[in-house]
Amino acid sequence: MSEVIEKGKAAKIASYQLIGLSTEQKNEALEKIAMQLVIDRESLLIENQKDLEQGRLKGFSESTLDRIMLNPKRIDDIAAAIRLLIELKDPIGEKLEMIEKENGLLIKKLRVPIGVIGMIYEARPNVTIDAATLSLKTGNAVILRGSSSAKYSNMALVSSIHKALKNTKIPVDAVQLIEDTSRETAKELFHLKDYLDVLIPRGGKNLIETVIRESTVPVLETGAGNCHIFIDETADLTMVENIVLNGKTQRPSVCNAIESLLIHEKWFEENGKRLLAVLNEKGIEIYGDEAVCNAFPEAKTATEEDWSTEYLALKISVKTVSCVSDAIEHINRYGTNHSEAILTKDEQNAAVFMNKVDAAAVYHNASTRFTDGFEFGYGAEIGISTQKLHARGPMGLPALTSSKYFIYGEGQTRE
Amino acid sequence: MSEVIEKGKAAKIASYQLIGLSTEQKNEALEKIAMQLVIDRESLLIENQKDLEQGRLKGFSESTLDRIMLNPKRIDDIAAAIRLLIELKDPIGEKLEMIEKENGLLIKKLRVPIGVIGMIYEARPNVTIDAATLSLKTGNAVILRGSSSAKYSNMALVSSIHKALKNTKIPVDAVQLIEDTSRETAKELFHLKDYLDVLIPRGGKNLIETVIRESTVPVLETGAGNCHIFIDETADLTMVENIVLNGKTQRPSVCNAIESLLIHEKWFEENGKRLLAVLNEKGIEIYGDEAVCNAFPEAKTATEEDWSTEYLALKISVKTVSCVSDAIEHINRYGTNHSEAILTKDEQNAAVFMNKVDAAAVYHNASTRFTDGFEFGYGAEIGISTQKLHARGPMGLPALTSSKYFIYGEGQTRE
Repeated sequence: MSEVIEKGKAAKIASYQLIGLSTEQKNEALEKIAMQLVIDRESLLIENQKDLEQGRLKGFSESTLDRIMLNPKRIDDIAAAIRLLIELKDPIGEKLEMIEKENGLLIKKLRVPIGVIGMIYEARPNVTIDAATLSLKTGNAVILRGSSSAKYSNMALVSSIHKALKNTKIPVDAVQLIEDTSRETAKELFHLKDYLDVLIPRGGKNLIETVIRESTVPVLETGAGNCHIFIDETADLTMVENIVLNGKTQRPSVCNAIESLLIHEKWFEENGKRLLAVLNEKGIEIYGDEAVCNAFPEAKTATEEDWSTEYLALKISVKTVSCVSDAIEHINRYGTNHSEAILTKDEQNAAVFMNKVDAAAVYHNASTRFTDGFEFGYGAEIGISTQKLHARGPMGLPALTSSKYFIYGEGQTRE
Repeated sequence: MSEVIEKGKAAKIASYQLIGLSTEQKNEALEKIAMQLVIDRESLLIENQKDLEQGRLKGFSESTLDRIMLNPKRIDDIAAAIRLLIELKDPIGEKLEMIEKENGLLIKKLRVPIGVIGMIYEARPNVTIDAATLSLKTGNAVILRGSSSAKYSNMALVSSIHKALKNTKIPVDAVQLIEDTSRETAKELFHLKDYLDVLIPRGGKNLIETVIRESTVPVLETGAGNCHIFIDETADLTMVENIVLNGKTQRPSVCNAIESLLIHEKWFEENGKRLLAVLNEKGIEIYGDEAVCNAFPEAKTATEEDWSTEYLALKISVKTVSCVSDAIEHINRYGTNHSEAILTKDEQNAAVFMNKVDAAAVYHNASTRFTDGFEFGYGAEIGISTQKLHARGPMGLPALTSSKYFIYGEGQTRE
């Protein structure tokens, strides 16, 4: 039996054992995991060093190495995040509906775990802990498939989790790591429909697209963010500068950073040059349409590809539009349904934009950088869904749950 | 451009036009559709005759022909169902969450349409109207792909819908039928990710399995129901007879009918023969394990295949088990996560069974035949979901909606 099938079977069995565990039992296990990670700090750092050395040999960039790196502070932060998770309300068992029928049937719709969650992700070892602990809090078993670049770190982290779980009510098989990080194990996961209830990819565009194309297991699509700001005719100049700089420069590598500006031609006439100069000063490369390039010679000409590119870097595409409808049309054509903002004093235009733009989160006069489970107050986040089914936008604990109807009768039959 | 791509593009455009329509505008269109179907009754029946004639030539069974057949009463029933739908609460715009952040940001999570729904289904022409009207009520555009066996009926029905929509605020392209019913158009729909937001298959096991295997569009899985009743040691004999007969004989061809009995060996010792005789008397073929065949010679020996077969006919598999855990294990192994029942006086066993059995609906002392959107009081149903994401169990109007975050600021940026 392959590693994937073996672990899939064990996860399914574990998922049944997780049903009915109390919040206290789950939280106790989470606390033990937090403690164990701190106890195992030294060995975790040693294993992490192996990944970093391999990464250096392979010529990974400093930013990639930084994403793989663990240090004492980061391990403490991970433990602290688990303790915050312990404080969060357990969604399992929540009464979603209650219907009393005339025939005496009592129908309760309750929140239940999904079952077995498959997580396929790149680089960052902290995702290993996030995915494991969020799954346990919601009563789910999880199968983790990290990338080869964090292989030793992930194995060490899961080994600590297993040590911690041994003296709890949670079966050890509730958290399992696929150690073989070859493409074949990813492919097996895509078709593990008998044991996996959902597959969540976290990582770059290629990973996500591959999972969507190949998986027969239901997928929760996360992450790609080609986010726009539309600067309407009546937008306030200072607000525009603050929000555009925040969206582009505060953390350019994340999915809710902005990649593209759409500017009302009248606003552009008056303020365009000044805004472009500010961006240029901050080291942002500008790819513009004809009007932009005419007004600001430092700008490069945007190609068709630029409009659909998620730069994740200090680059931005800029296009002038003649009205809010043009902006909406452009966004619905090139956007990735993540986060989109309009800056305007015109309430009517704001309403039209927010209703018609097809995205998980639409903003009026605020930065798209707020699309985040912690910023929304959910206290935890398994990713940001850019699909429309099951969960849309930042996914907190309820996104890792399903529902089930419990029907109580006294012998009722259907007529 | 192929028919599927052309209609997909038009549906996407229509879906944007549907955003923001009022409940009154949508209900007015629904009323016009109901009226038009009655006006067009004669021509609908003429087109339906063509399908029936072709079906007879192809040697369809009487039950299949019955499923294709329209008559004046059925058309009136369809119109009446639309009027009931008009009365239902419009879920669009419902406030699901409202968060006021300390920085002054106001975050509203509202219920919105999904966008474009693809419906792929077999035989029954009334699904054409159900899918079209439920989609319109929830502000979605829909692409219908019925089967060749109801082709003329479906074309006539959609033609009536188009006539009705012409004088309303709903764009005609909000409801479109793929007229080419070849396998190629189904395959195109499976990959129409640019224009379809969800694909819902309704029909037999083969259709559903094909869609799940091949579609890259997110799928809402419906329907297969290998439903069990577990008769526990303390089950009441009269209740057992009533519920088993109701589950098996009231409408054997539907997904919430029962296909398998699991009987506690002590109950079986005392009452097994009598129950089997009652089933046999009603013309139900029994496929049993050794104990069953020994006790009741008319029973045939059940093969491994029987345990996972959805007969949809007057056949039943019967197995004796030694405890509730055995029953749960059997169901989780062979069931289809649809509807499962325990008959018992033991509250503890009922609780264990209902918690541990992995199904959309679990029953204590009631018939599985109640798993139905109308029986649950939802007033409408687009199918019964047997998957765990997005919607589980009978899917009413909310299953055809998504959510969207609307965030209102005064220039807030992230720190």
